[in-house]
Amino acid sequence: MKNPFPFSAIVGQTEMKQAMLLTAIDPSIGGVLVFGDRGTGKSTAVRALAALLPPIKAVKACPVNSETFKDCPDWANVTGNATHKIPTPVVDLPLGASEDRVTGALDIEKALTRGEKAFQPGLLAAANRGYLYIDEVNLLEDHIVDLLLDVAQSGENVIEREGLSIRHAARFVLVGSGNPEEGELRPQLLDRFGLSVDVTSPNDISERVEVIKRRDAFENDNAAFMLRWQAEDAALRDQILAARKALKKLKTPETTLHDVAKLCIKLGSDGLRGELTLLKTARAYAALRNDTALTRAHIRDIAPMALRHRLRRDPLDEAGSGTRVVRIVEDVLG
Amino acid sequence: MKNPFPFSAIVGQTEMKQAMLLTAIDPSIGGVLVFGDRGTGKSTAVRALAALLPPIKAVKACPVNSETFKDCPDWANVTGNATHKIPTPVVDLPLGASEDRVTGALDIEKALTRGEKAFQPGLLAAANRGYLYIDEVNLLEDHIVDLLLDVAQSGENVIEREGLSIRHAARFVLVGSGNPEEGELRPQLLDRFGLSVDVTSPNDISERVEVIKRRDAFENDNAAFMLRWQAEDAALRDQILAARKALKKLKTPETTLHDVAKLCIKLGSDGLRGELTLLKTARAYAALRNDTALTRAHIRDIAPMALRHRLRRDPLDEAGSGTRVVRIVEDVLG
Amino acid sequence: MKNPFPFSAIVGQTEMKQAMLLTAIDPSIGGVLVFGDRGTGKSTAVRALAALLPPIKAVKACPVNSETFKDCPDWANVTGNATHKIPTPVVDLPLGASEDRVTGALDIEKALTRGEKAFQPGLLAAANRGYLYIDEVNLLEDHIVDLLLDVAQSGENVIEREGLSIRHAARFVLVGSGNPEEGELRPQLLDRFGLSVDVTSPNDISERVEVIKRRDAFENDNAAFMLRWQAEDAALRDQILAARKALKKLKTPETTLHDVAKLCIKLGSDGLRGELTLLKTARAYAALRNDTALTRAHIRDIAPMALRHRLRRDPLDEAGSGTRVVRIVEDVLG
Amino acid sequence: MKNPFPFSAIVGQTEMKQAMLLTAIDPSIGGVLVFGDRGTGKSTAVRALAALLPPIKAVKACPVNSETFKDCPDWANVTGNATHKIPTPVVDLPLGASEDRVTGALDIEKALTRGEKAFQPGLLAAANRGYLYIDEVNLLEDHIVDLLLDVAQSGENVIEREGLSIRHAARFVLVGSGNPEEGELRPQLLDRFGLSVDVTSPNDISERVEVIKRRDAFENDNAAFMLRWQAEDAALRDQILAARKALKKLKTPETTLHDVAKLCIKLGSDGLRGELTLLKTARAYAALRNDTALTRAHIRDIAPMALRHRLRRDPLDEAGSGTRVVRIVEDVLG
Amino acid sequence: MKNPFPFSAIVGQTEMKQAMLLTAIDPSIGGVLVFGDRGTGKSTAVRALAALLPPIKAVKACPVNSETFKDCPDWANVTGNATHKIPTPVVDLPLGASEDRVTGALDIEKALTRGEKAFQPGLLAAANRGYLYIDEVNLLEDHIVDLLLDVAQSGENVIEREGLSIRHAARFVLVGSGNPEEGELRPQLLDRFGLSVDVTSPNDISERVEVIKRRDAFENDNAAFMLRWQAEDAALRDQILAARKALKKLKTPETTLHDVAKLCIKLGSDGLRGELTLLKTARAYAALRNDTALTRAHIRDIAPMALRHRLRRDPLDEAGSGTRVVRIVEDVLG
Amino acid sequence: MKNPFPFSAIVGQTEMKQAMLLTAIDPSIGGVLVFGDRGTGKSTAVRALAALLPPIKAVKACPVNSETFKDCPDWANVTGNATHKIPTPVVDLPLGASEDRVTGALDIEKALTRGEKAFQPGLLAAANRGYLYIDEVNLLEDHIVDLLLDVAQSGENVIEREGLSIRHAARFVLVGSGNPEEGELRPQLLDRFGLSVDVTSPNDISERVEVIKRRDAFENDNAAFMLRWQAEDAALRDQILAARKALKKLKTPETTLHDVAKLCIKLGSDGLRGELTLLKTARAYAALRNDTALTRAHIRDIAPMALRHRLRRDPLDEAGSGTRVVRIVEDVLG
Repeated sequence: MKNPFPFSAIVGQTEMKQAMLLTAIDPSIGGVLVFGDRGTGKSTAVRALAALLPPIKAVKACPVNSETFKDCPDWANVTGNATHKIPTPVVDLPLGASEDRVTGALDIEKALTRGEKAFQPGLLAAANRGYLYIDEVNLLEDHIVDLLLDVAQSGENVIEREGLSIRHAARFVLVGSGNPEEGELRPQLLDRFGLSVDVTSPNDISERVEVIKRRDAFENDNAAFMLRWQAEDAALRDQILAARKALKKLKTPETTLHDVAKLCIKLGSDGLRGELTLLKTARAYAALRNDTALTRAHIRDIAPMALRHRLRRDPLDEAGSGTRVVRIVEDVLG
Repeated sequence: MKNPFPFSAIVGQTEMKQAMLLTAIDPSIGGVLVFGDRGTGKSTAVRALAALLPPIKAVKACPVNSETFKDCPDWANVTGNATHKIPTPVVDLPLGASEDRVTGALDIEKALTRGEKAFQPGLLAAANRGYLYIDEVNLLEDHIVDLLLDVAQSGENVIEREGLSIRHAARFVLVGSGNPEEGELRPQLLDRFGLSVDVTSPNDISERVEVIKRRDAFENDNAAFMLRWQAEDAALRDQILAARKALKKLKTPETTLHDVAKLCIKLGSDGLRGELTLLKTARAYAALRNDTALTRAHIRDIAPMALRHRLRRDPLDEAGSGTRVVRIVEDVLG
Repeated sequence: MKNPFPFSAIVGQTEMKQAMLLTAIDPSIGGVLVFGDRGTGKSTAVRALAALLPPIKAVKACPVNSETFKDCPDWANVTGNATHKIPTPVVDLPLGASEDRVTGALDIEKALTRGEKAFQPGLLAAANRGYLYIDEVNLLEDHIVDLLLDVAQSGENVIEREGLSIRHAARFVLVGSGNPEEGELRPQLLDRFGLSVDVTSPNDISERVEVIKRRDAFENDNAAFMLRWQAEDAALRDQILAARKALKKLKTPETTLHDVAKLCIKLGSDGLRGELTLLKTARAYAALRNDTALTRAHIRDIAPMALRHRLRRDPLDEAGSGTRVVRIVEDVLG
Repeated sequence: MKNPFPFSAIVGQTEMKQAMLLTAIDPSIGGVLVFGDRGTGKSTAVRALAALLPPIKAVKACPVNSETFKDCPDWANVTGNATHKIPTPVVDLPLGASEDRVTGALDIEKALTRGEKAFQPGLLAAANRGYLYIDEVNLLEDHIVDLLLDVAQSGENVIEREGLSIRHAARFVLVGSGNPEEGELRPQLLDRFGLSVDVTSPNDISERVEVIKRRDAFENDNAAFMLRWQAEDAALRDQILAARKALKKLKTPETTLHDVAKLCIKLGSDGLRGELTLLKTARAYAALRNDTALTRAHIRDIAPMALRHRLRRDPLDEAGSGTRVVRIVEDVLG
Repeated sequence: MKNPFPFSAIVGQTEMKQAMLLTAIDPSIGGVLVFGDRGTGKSTAVRALAALLPPIKAVKACPVNSETFKDCPDWANVTGNATHKIPTPVVDLPLGASEDRVTGALDIEKALTRGEKAFQPGLLAAANRGYLYIDEVNLLEDHIVDLLLDVAQSGENVIEREGLSIRHAARFVLVGSGNPEEGELRPQLLDRFGLSVDVTSPNDISERVEVIKRRDAFENDNAAFMLRWQAEDAALRDQILAARKALKKLKTPETTLHDVAKLCIKLGSDGLRGELTLLKTARAYAALRNDTALTRAHIRDIAPMALRHRLRRDPLDEAGSGTRVVRIVEDVLG
Repeated sequence: MKNPFPFSAIVGQTEMKQAMLLTAIDPSIGGVLVFGDRGTGKSTAVRALAALLPPIKAVKACPVNSETFKDCPDWANVTGNATHKIPTPVVDLPLGASEDRVTGALDIEKALTRGEKAFQPGLLAAANRGYLYIDEVNLLEDHIVDLLLDVAQSGENVIEREGLSIRHAARFVLVGSGNPEEGELRPQLLDRFGLSVDVTSPNDISERVEVIKRRDAFENDNAAFMLRWQAEDAALRDQILAARKALKKLKTPETTLHDVAKLCIKLGSDGLRGELTLLKTARAYAALRNDTALTRAHIRDIAPMALRHRLRRDPLDEAGSGTRVVRIVEDVLG
């Protein structure tokens, strides 16, 4: 069962899939938080994403998957500049991983046996130019989440410890899943994720039967199933590549900036990360749709995933934060 | 007292024995949770299972019991490709086992005395192609349970630590026992077990006398007792082997898929693992009964063990979750 | 003050002394829990037991007191097969003993100075073929108690740690004392002890004077006192040896099995360990009394110590669990 | 994205920017606490400050950025006295940094491999003559905050540990940010910061649009944007240099001292740090404004940032402490 | 200020001084607990005791102060059998002493530098044949108190750790002080102390003036003060030596045993340690008074210190446990 | 800013300054506790004290500042007996200092690199013959405070650890500051401090202006300021030296002893440390005033600082403990 499930074959869960695609178009949107019931295919989707994403060119044996020889860290002793195509990295951060495992650390064995100070790269190195997935991110210790968000934002991992002073590129999108019933992230950390989506189990029988059938085909008739969905995954991959290019030429009218600001003030979301993220996400969305200018409609469609997790809890308003975003979007943008 | 108690000689506890047999037919059903009073023979049953299961062919000295030489991990330095028949492994995970003990770890002694970086395989290696038994699984730390479920699901154990990067096959069925009065598993973890069964002490005098008599014979007249049950265990073993073959040819009508989906929506079980497990278990059950197609009756019989542990607790419904499953099965499937 | 107090010279405490004698006749009855007030001579009794028990033949320098050379563990480097008579081991597990001290561990010193991986056997090795005594067992950590009960039941100590894979025989009877006012064992652990007895301070003046006199004589006129009780201890020792032989020939009528089952169902004791232990204990008791067949009377006498600790607490029934056992024995066995 | 955001291009947040400028004129004012909502650009401002501040002359390879060779610590083995211009250091203290990382420590690797006792300087060395920034200072352990404040005040870092006795200059301004909703500093520590400012998200649409536009230009049209603001940053830098000189000649009339004392008594602020800080800050403020003597107006403007964090909480007065300072300033100074 | 305060010069505190003298006559009485207000001279008394007690003959350089060469532990490498007179050891156990410090441990330095496994004896070795004093015994961890009581009772310290198997004589009297307001010992531990006394500040002016005067003379005119009390200390010392001899010939009538038992039953003290201690203490008391036979009067005088700490707390009886002992002694012995 | 603030230039805080002077006359009075608001100049006063105190003659390179060569510890390898004048040591104990740092410890580096067992003296060695200052003593762990008080009282630091057995003189006065709102010392520890004083912020404008002016002059015109106060510090220093001599000849009438005892009984202060400290402090006070005999007036003046911290809290009496001492002094001494 080596092949991951095809991304296109995932039934429903439109918002989660869209958020993932948008960060593939513009990784500077920041991380994605996926909240929802157990068993709704969150980790399946991340693993599917790994296979969907366009492959990248990388120097062979470079621990941070650099595109060119000069970008390989010097501590890595990369000897040649030959490159190859590799899948976009999608790295899984296991629950309970130590900080050393995440950031990399002194290679104790080499230190002891050869008296050398060598660096053992960690998960952040492996995730460069790709995705870092954390299941149940709300169960991680705060200082690890903080570290991950810091690195994700700065694009660089700096390790200064025990006489080591190592740095390497670490540009990746953080994807975290979690069940809000099991504990929440601090608002400080929530705000530093770009997007958030909710996933739920479908309540439609034919949709559920479809899920079972595809899962069943995937497990019991794998080769045929993979072939069946190959073309659709390829089309999606091309769409991402096209959107990346389109993004640069996209126009942003002044009125849209006003819409964005008005919306965020009305929502009372703290800080300015909301505006910036909303703007970037809406642009990536327009590019994905192959539109040439940003409009109020793009903002309206994308606002919930960009703002939902930045609202203060309002004890008098029983609607979920997603619903509140929609309501206010309607008020403000008509 | 070397011989385990014969599986066939276990009095009663039908549901537990059946769940174990079904995972022997299709290990992808996933783990089995056995909940119940102390002293109801849970660990006796697991040890009996070890003796009942069909032996496997394995390369000599391979730490993961591989069937062929090419599947032995390279770090194991297996020197020949001679094979032998060994019992299906059933490994016991002791309470308080360290993570190193479970996953394997660097062999400190070799590192110190010979300057070599050698891998010391753990319980996950030993359990490959068999069963891993955890008594009082609800007392284990969450991150260990999580790790075990991850490995069980992916079929591979990956250790990246202290400059080691080791991976080996680790395909096994997790069997966990626990007393619900002593603490519960998080719903996230519960949902990742395939089946769950309840066991209780029998309340029938002759049944209990029978238990004592068999136990007594087993302890005080061991040779005769083992001989007495040998044939029944052998028959059961043949039945498993036959069912494994039959499983592949089993038909699954579309209507059954609808039954399965309707049932799970009605039960309000989160996620889609319920449907998939129910389907697989019902198929294994049909194969065990030597039936050629899946019917509503198979679903009905097997639903409680596949779904009982996936229900949300309903404070207004005092019936146990097993009873609620039965009631809704009757409603939905008639 | 080298000699322990003579077992026969212990005033009163009949039930505790009897439980100890019965496990000396059939060690498979399992451990004994002694609950009671402080200062009631619990540890004196255990130390006395050490001197009372029949000596055993053991290979010289064998760390697990094996009877024959071939049973000595290979890691022990026993060089000759000469044997000697040694007292039945009675080992004291100190409060706060580490797990290493209990199970044995790698001998760090040899590892460091000679580069050898040598095993340093622990208390479980020393207790093989004898008794392991734990004062205040209810203060031990659960996982240590669990480990002790596991080893006691399997008769084997398996250590797999840091590249070691050591196993040795560890057949012993666990004797634990505890004050129920200072915390209780989990029901799961309670159930795994064979017998339990309560001890209290005597309330009869002459009995107490007798205790003081004997204690005083023991301390101030030791030689004479030891001589005075030597014969009685010797007689008891012979009685144990005779009972061990008689046990094998003892008859168990079917009706007694029914009595045992009926009693346990009526008592509502979970699991089946109660029946098995009651049966074994009653047999050892009959053998000690030199009776040739098991009768209802034996069951009646021995039921409290075999079942008292297996009852669920009943908040509406203020009688102690011992009293409840007696009452129900009268109801059921008449 | 190597360049930090230009300090002059920060929209609004006047009080925070002013506090930072004043400590650049007189570092003996002490640290600055920045409290406020998430996402209000606190860390952006600190990073911007790094680029704004006048460069300093420092001996090459001196670990504490000393201006002259004789001030380099002897343990640093600085070999030449060549100097260069470097940016004013602004060092970031990561959440979860160990005490060793902060103060410096024995270089374990050199100790092990070369048998040498070498000192590995820490963040305090790097921050000498500059700024040390701590995000979420209220989440740091008290003893680390205490240590930082001690060193900041004494201007010297003394490490005496494991046979080391090292000292080096460590003169820096501490800038700490924090969200008061996530826990507060002990009053003892609060009082040792010189200034405190509150920052909030702007509620004016055009201000917010301006923020987005600048941020957007900074990210997507970086070169042009940096050029646009270069001159304004340079002007501000010159203003700091001029104010540093003016400060020495500034007059302090006796009546101002009385105003200061009266104000602090009326505010009921404990201790005398309030008066001293208020005086120093008002002087730096006058110097920044290019005024030649200290007047009541300077005191009035600067009082909130110097005193706000020194007030005892008054449960009957719901106004924030900033408002209370303003009110009392009006009462006392008219 | 090298000389301890003379024992005879201690004003008041009769019961505490008497308890200490009695354990000097018969150390098998067991430890003494001194409860009372701070500053009531508890530690002064213990230090005074050290100077009062008769000196002992000991082998030079023997770490356990053995009287003869053959009693020196072999690990100590004592080379000659020359003896000298040394003061009775009184060892102070500091709050926070590690278990290693108490029991002795492997000498790490010798192990590292010479590759030798040497034993570094601890406080228990130093206290052999003397006293071990613990200030604030109620603040010690239970397992340390337990260990101390075990060793004190068995007279032997056994260390089995890290490949060491060391044992040495450790016969001493434990003296513990504590303030009952700061936490109590568990009844299990209380019962294992032989005697307990309460001390309070005197309320009589002339007594307090006398205390100040003596203390003042001791500090400011030390030589004269020591001379003044030398003779009284010497007399007390002779009295102890005489009583030790007399003790062996002392008669114990049967009726006294009955008195003792009756008293303890009436008091409801758990266990039999009460009777035994009361008997021994009364005998030592009779010997100190130079009486030739034990009488009811001796029992009456000594009962409070031997029994007070063995009573269960009675919430309905507000009298202190000392008062309750006196009342019942009057009832029973008339 | 190397020079400490001159002691004479401290405005107000009379009681705190007096307590410090009295311990300089008779160090056996014991430690001083300074309780009060933050920022009231507690640590400034201690640092000022260091400069005020008369210099001492000490052997060069002696780690414990011994006056003569023979008093230098042998482990220090002091090679010559040349002496020099050094300031009275005032050592600062940093919050979070380890026990090793306080007491001294094995020099790990020498042990590792040279195989030598060398002692690295700690803060207690440095403080010998001087003062040890602890800021926020109420935040220290109890066992460290206990250790400090033990050493301060015995005048000797004994380290027995890891095969070391080191002792050295450690006679010093402990000065601890603390804010009672942040947690209190246990009464056991409070009682072992000799004196306690409260400090508060002045409420008089001209006094506060004076503080600011002096502080300002000290910072900005340091040389002139130091010169201005030199003579007053010198006079105070001479007064201390004179009082030390006078103390020996001071008369103590019997009636004063009665006053002291009566006062302490009336106050209900536990233990006898109160009387002794009150007596010593009153004597030092009389000597400082150059009086030749102790009178009731001296007792009256000094009672609050000697007794205030020894009172039990009285929940019905709302007056602070200082006020209660004054009231009772008036009652008793008229």
